[in-house]
Amino acid sequence: MNETPTLASTHPTEAASLASWAQNVKRSPLQEMLFAAAKPGIISFAMGLPAPELFPVEELIRASGHVLANDSRALQYGPPFQPLKSQVVELMAKRKVACCEEQVFITTGAQQGMSLLVRLLLEPRGRVLTEQLIYPGFQQVIEPYEPEVISVAIDARTGIDVAAVASLLASGAQPAFIYAISSGHNPVGVSLTEAKRLRLVDLARQYRIPIIEDDPYGFLDYGRETLPPLRAYDDQWVFYVGSFSKILTPALRVGWLVVPENLIPKLSVVKEASDIDTNTFAQRLISRLLEQEEIDRRLSMLRDEYRARRDTMAQALRESFPMAAKWVTPDHGFFFWVELPHGVDTLGLLAKALEKERVAFIPGQAFSVDPSSGATNCMRLNFSHSNPNLIREGIARLGELVREALNRNIVD
Amino acid sequence: MNETPTLASTHPTEAASLASWAQNVKRSPLQEMLFAAAKPGIISFAMGLPAPELFPVEELIRASGHVLANDSRALQYGPPFQPLKSQVVELMAKRKVACCEEQVFITTGAQQGMSLLVRLLLEPRGRVLTEQLIYPGFQQVIEPYEPEVISVAIDARTGIDVAAVASLLASGAQPAFIYAISSGHNPVGVSLTEAKRLRLVDLARQYRIPIIEDDPYGFLDYGRETLPPLRAYDDQWVFYVGSFSKILTPALRVGWLVVPENLIPKLSVVKEASDIDTNTFAQRLISRLLEQEEIDRRLSMLRDEYRARRDTMAQALRESFPMAAKWVTPDHGFFFWVELPHGVDTLGLLAKALEKERVAFIPGQAFSVDPSSGATNCMRLNFSHSNPNLIREGIARLGELVREALNRNIVD
Repeated sequence: MNETPTLASTHPTEAASLASWAQNVKRSPLQEMLFAAAKPGIISFAMGLPAPELFPVEELIRASGHVLANDSRALQYGPPFQPLKSQVVELMAKRKVACCEEQVFITTGAQQGMSLLVRLLLEPRGRVLTEQLIYPGFQQVIEPYEPEVISVAIDARTGIDVAAVASLLASGAQPAFIYAISSGHNPVGVSLTEAKRLRLVDLARQYRIPIIEDDPYGFLDYGRETLPPLRAYDDQWVFYVGSFSKILTPALRVGWLVVPENLIPKLSVVKEASDIDTNTFAQRLISRLLEQEEIDRRLSMLRDEYRARRDTMAQALRESFPMAAKWVTPDHGFFFWVELPHGVDTLGLLAKALEKERVAFIPGQAFSVDPSSGATNCMRLNFSHSNPNLIREGIARLGELVREALNRNIVD
Repeated sequence: MNETPTLASTHPTEAASLASWAQNVKRSPLQEMLFAAAKPGIISFAMGLPAPELFPVEELIRASGHVLANDSRALQYGPPFQPLKSQVVELMAKRKVACCEEQVFITTGAQQGMSLLVRLLLEPRGRVLTEQLIYPGFQQVIEPYEPEVISVAIDARTGIDVAAVASLLASGAQPAFIYAISSGHNPVGVSLTEAKRLRLVDLARQYRIPIIEDDPYGFLDYGRETLPPLRAYDDQWVFYVGSFSKILTPALRVGWLVVPENLIPKLSVVKEASDIDTNTFAQRLISRLLEQEEIDRRLSMLRDEYRARRDTMAQALRESFPMAAKWVTPDHGFFFWVELPHGVDTLGLLAKALEKERVAFIPGQAFSVDPSSGATNCMRLNFSHSNPNLIREGIARLGELVREALNRNIVD
């Protein structure tokens, strides 16, 4: 035994043994993209970032000064900020969701909301029902549980294949939950039809399987009429995940859940284990930004801006992409999902796009829960982060590459 | 099948089935205390709260304005703020820890740091080595894994029983990690002797078992000389968890880890799954508060203030508590650990203290990993949150009750 203090380990190359699931874990494609697309001069359609020029900077400067000067609890540990819960109830009412403060749970962003729900619902090696294409951040949430993922197709015009869900549940699948995005799907962009909303909620009720409804884009709708989220149709089997990241700012990491009241005490235990409480200062800043109809003006402004960017991208795609490329213009959210003919490999295309054209996007396979059903011919294009000029320029450059790839593909 | 939208579930009293560990989960004793002690008029020695009158309010008002007006990335999703990592390296150097930015990982508070490390290290039903008395928030972190907890005694003067650790490891215990607080232990208040620090680190190396070193109070030392944390003695087997909550403000939820560099990519995956990134605005505010020797002035001010409160509580205990009550004056942190004669039940005492004397503390059993070894005759008293007058008043009231309980105990 050596009683002399030494900094260097006696076995500097040895590493602690990790839990089995963690041994091969590495950065997600989205994280790699974040690095690649963060270089100056790259036009990035990769990440799902809101437009920074639309952030409420002046409002936050005022709110920070006000909160710090007037609210002595803003810097201490503390329980959820009650006025914010009440504002969430009002916000949900705008989406035709009836709920009460006792059903609202404040989280460190929507990602934490999903992570906490999964913690409560999923056993190690438990079963999960998702679409074949999902938000990779949700895959990261479930990965440590080494789950059995059963997946169903997603239609680019109508959303999740509810007949397949029905059939799986009828055959006794019994997943711990169904994960779904009802409006402005990430990555596919689609919003569920009303018939599918009703049917999905009915299935959840009938089989007593909760739906985790991830709704970061629900407030960003660009059509004439918008459907309410699944939570509007059922208050017992739909666990709603809400986010301020896309409508205010992602920096403050504040989101919310709307769940049956009996889950709240259990959520508060897993929440405390995760990070004690949600930033008490940030909760108060968000609450200030939600005051006095400011949020209505803001939502209206965001819808106008993002609708214009969506339309710009739609037109640029029509002008620059070949006829064989297919997409459906989304009525919510941040993304176009473009399907190229089979055989075109969008991962290879991305390497070229970054190198030759300095344009970034995310290849479809990054979203696939089943590598064999790959979506290797698809790409997700974000239209919220770049201004219309950059969108036109970037899509034109990307269109060139896609045409080349298609020609090569036909020749091959 | 019902195609009519209805809000009420058809089975309103039924609830989703939860993962087995979660079925009986409920609020922790600390959470219950938070409610009980938050009532007006209660003198609370319960929670581990920093003194709100010492928060850097003016500094944060200036920092908020500055950051929002000058840093356009402060409101967007983003990677860890590099200047903050560099400041953490400087801060660690003050504790005689040599580390580099590549070993620093920014977290949403120290609690998240522990939660992420456990996620990487612990298998479901895996084994964990702790002291018999630990921070309940760490129990909450490991609870979902349904772990086998093997525990060793803790001595109020010297800290963790390293001979017992050695014996367990020698007999092949192979825990996933050892959880330890080296300075200002929560709840016991003790700081490890140098010999124990050296021995514990040697054991970790010898048996290749990482130590999760939880160090929220390490910068708050009140003695003439202070020992460096375990991380100063080994950079491979000690995973250090740091916190700004006690030295700046807990509201912003920013903490850090110092770990071997190879763990950082894996941590960034579990971090992204938990809450995407750490509040980018909060990271920049913390960074401003750490600038220009402000932190040295601040640490010095906090040490003086908290030392005075500690001394006030020590004197009040000597004056008001019976001779049979034992404690060791802590040289770090926020807590006195008071041991009463066996047979005195501090849980019952708390009920009376709240009702009759309007004083709160936390009964020892809330910290016990093994209910049978209970610490039912002990209490944790926080001295950081109440000002000296309240400390004198509260300890006097509590002393009355303790004397009564002792007399009853002798009579029984």
